[in-house]
Amino acid sequence: MSHYDVIVLGGGPGGYIAAERLGHAKKNVLLIEAGSLGGTCLNVGCIPTKALLNAAKTYEHAIHGKQLGVNAVDVSVDWAQMQKWKAQTVSTLVGGVGAAEKKAGVTVINGYGTFDGPGKVTVDATSYTADHVILATGSVPVMPPIPGTANNPAVVDSTGMLSVAEIPGKLTVIGGGVIGLEFASLFAMLGSEVTVIEMLPEIAPFMDADIAAQLRKALDGVTFQLNSKVTAIDGGTVNFTAADGSEQSVDSDVVLMAVGRRPAVQGWGAESSGLEFSGKGIVVDDRMRTNLPNVWAVGDVTGRSLLAHAAYRMGEIAVANILDDQAFRRGELMRWNAIPWAVYANPESAGIGHTEASAKAAGLNAKSVTVPGYMSGRFVAENGVKAPGAAKLVYDADSLQVLGLTVLGSYASEMIWGACVVLETELSVNDLRQIVLPHPTVSELIREAAWAVNA
Amino acid sequence: MSHYDVIVLGGGPGGYIAAERLGHAKKNVLLIEAGSLGGTCLNVGCIPTKALLNAAKTYEHAIHGKQLGVNAVDVSVDWAQMQKWKAQTVSTLVGGVGAAEKKAGVTVINGYGTFDGPGKVTVDATSYTADHVILATGSVPVMPPIPGTANNPAVVDSTGMLSVAEIPGKLTVIGGGVIGLEFASLFAMLGSEVTVIEMLPEIAPFMDADIAAQLRKALDGVTFQLNSKVTAIDGGTVNFTAADGSEQSVDSDVVLMAVGRRPAVQGWGAESSGLEFSGKGIVVDDRMRTNLPNVWAVGDVTGRSLLAHAAYRMGEIAVANILDDQAFRRGELMRWNAIPWAVYANPESAGIGHTEASAKAAGLNAKSVTVPGYMSGRFVAENGVKAPGAAKLVYDADSLQVLGLTVLGSYASEMIWGACVVLETELSVNDLRQIVLPHPTVSELIREAAWAVNA
Repeated sequence: MSHYDVIVLGGGPGGYIAAERLGHAKKNVLLIEAGSLGGTCLNVGCIPTKALLNAAKTYEHAIHGKQLGVNAVDVSVDWAQMQKWKAQTVSTLVGGVGAAEKKAGVTVINGYGTFDGPGKVTVDATSYTADHVILATGSVPVMPPIPGTANNPAVVDSTGMLSVAEIPGKLTVIGGGVIGLEFASLFAMLGSEVTVIEMLPEIAPFMDADIAAQLRKALDGVTFQLNSKVTAIDGGTVNFTAADGSEQSVDSDVVLMAVGRRPAVQGWGAESSGLEFSGKGIVVDDRMRTNLPNVWAVGDVTGRSLLAHAAYRMGEIAVANILDDQAFRRGELMRWNAIPWAVYANPESAGIGHTEASAKAAGLNAKSVTVPGYMSGRFVAENGVKAPGAAKLVYDADSLQVLGLTVLGSYASEMIWGACVVLETELSVNDLRQIVLPHPTVSELIREAAWAVNA
Repeated sequence: MSHYDVIVLGGGPGGYIAAERLGHAKKNVLLIEAGSLGGTCLNVGCIPTKALLNAAKTYEHAIHGKQLGVNAVDVSVDWAQMQKWKAQTVSTLVGGVGAAEKKAGVTVINGYGTFDGPGKVTVDATSYTADHVILATGSVPVMPPIPGTANNPAVVDSTGMLSVAEIPGKLTVIGGGVIGLEFASLFAMLGSEVTVIEMLPEIAPFMDADIAAQLRKALDGVTFQLNSKVTAIDGGTVNFTAADGSEQSVDSDVVLMAVGRRPAVQGWGAESSGLEFSGKGIVVDDRMRTNLPNVWAVGDVTGRSLLAHAAYRMGEIAVANILDDQAFRRGELMRWNAIPWAVYANPESAGIGHTEASAKAAGLNAKSVTVPGYMSGRFVAENGVKAPGAAKLVYDADSLQVLGLTVLGSYASEMIWGACVVLETELSVNDLRQIVLPHPTVSELIREAAWAVNA
């Protein structure tokens, strides 16, 4: 069979979820992936980093358990075993995606697909046609043209960093975004001397700047060079212009280039297809339609959000609108402002919606309250009263509607989805006050923040 | 000054929150507490157990870190230090409550208050009057009249268990509710040989029975005797009639009596005050009014819910209705079905709303789906694919409204509040599907459950 209802080009989170959902809706679906199912996220992104970060946190907790009453005399890290656990996790989950596609009746081809225009895809000289095509080709790491980067064995991207032969004695991370911070925290926990060089005045620009500053100070063992521009790399020596204008350098065993990722729009036919691009990626509307008929794009390749869970949702939106061209009337539109983020460093942080700055820039009469971690009994019981932690609530001073939430501290990534529901249902501060949270939880910080408004 | 706007009798979660909120509303408030501020929860309940459980989990993770790549050769528990950490946590937080009351302008008396009728309270022969009185006297552990219990030094209640001189070699827990399970898990992690004896056919009767069974099987090192009735205790020997009708016994160094708690309605004047009691506690309506004018009751003493966070909310409801007798029109009514629960054992579990059984008993056309823990990438990355975990979603088959959620697995307690928002805002399964959760999180199991409906 060479004609399908839908062909999905790319088996990362956006693509595989779209294929799976379409399969469950009884569509004939072809999913094409050149590498392993799961894409960047599962193979060399979210998942392997989380496997390693959890192991590193286990190590960190073991060596610092003394005050809690846990004495560990001789604790060590077995990097080879960490790698094995990571690889086993990835391979299990890749198998799980394959099994899910099979269960949904999706045909999967392992090959490099090219897009030949609406309804047409070629894999290894075989042509396939479809009523709809979903483009989900993902993104690739950006390697900026800094002198000394190319062919320098000391310089790695995030994929290389996941599999370095040994824990580096000295690690320099170029870029203080999510990827850079997670690796910085990971290797700092494992004993590396870590320096992060960031061009902007603060790390994690998606975060409320004051909470980002708290996170930066909380990242033990990481030295930050803000407002700093890398000028050249020579072996493991990273030269940069520091905040004060002086020329400085830092020696490293490994240099991680983590300045961002860009949509993968080259090499698979996009250039000649007539697809509309912005500087960011393939242009899509809120239903994930491209400018070409029955051609959809989801995930990183749109450049709208480079997060796996955003890709999932984009895939679902495309599917809903493919299955029913009136689906958008039932709210099946991408709500770009309802996408949370999480940084799985130690400590964790997570957030959703407006920062105080973005709300004000949007012309809203935004106010905020911030409560410290020690307002939560569980936080104190587990981390002590001085540990870094906070919840910041941004709200509309006129309507009291909740506009955004940022949390720093243990469990942040797992509690933030409640705030997603709060934002999606447009609750006010007063509504949030009425929600009953289990006690004792760190999540209660969010409730405390609501009660701190005008208190 | 001996006349106040409001007198609050009891400084546990219900009482101290009520006093604090009233203080911030510029009311003159007198808070009377015979023991330490914070009540059972903070001094001998939720908080000290969580301090110990977190320490025990740290120990557990350290000794089982090998597969993750963390080798700990010599890990041991220092029970005295655990006790010290626990005591320090409690004392910090008790100080925090005192500071919060002071900041709110609340007058606190450390003494034993008696209720002399509407508007009248006496402490140590000094009389105080008030426009309103909030009764928040809490609860006490139930010690059932089992032969051999009284004056048996081997038998302790939860308060005694928190401070046992050493980790018992053998521990028998009578009662498989929240308190019994948390202590069973705690001491099993610390190396005790633990037996739990439960009268009912399954532990944790507030939980969906199938998830309760999964939790039971997941509690490593704990032996359960279900459908079993303790007949007598002789020193550390607990005699019981087992499920098969046979008479059996189990030897123990410590016996924990954890069959429940009852409202503290004696000794402080309640008997002679004209207050209406049910078999459970002081009768209140959904505004927390008792049968006496301007006399309110909140927390465990009402017997409606013996959970600290329910007490908080009851305190807030009483305050809202004291401040504004029309507050109930703005939704300031106790919604008893919107109170979550959490069991902080290893693994954790948490839930809110209907179980499948309770929904059906209420006449609803309830259906459910359950997804396993390994559906979450983070769950697998941290615990492996075989670890116990699940999310069960109960929904109305007609309207698709979400009726209840139960989660078993890591972070359950911190993710459940999102489900509280889902229930409070009466979202449907389809609404829940549209919420974007950060990836990878264990919370995504809840979203997976929504997508598994009719899939």
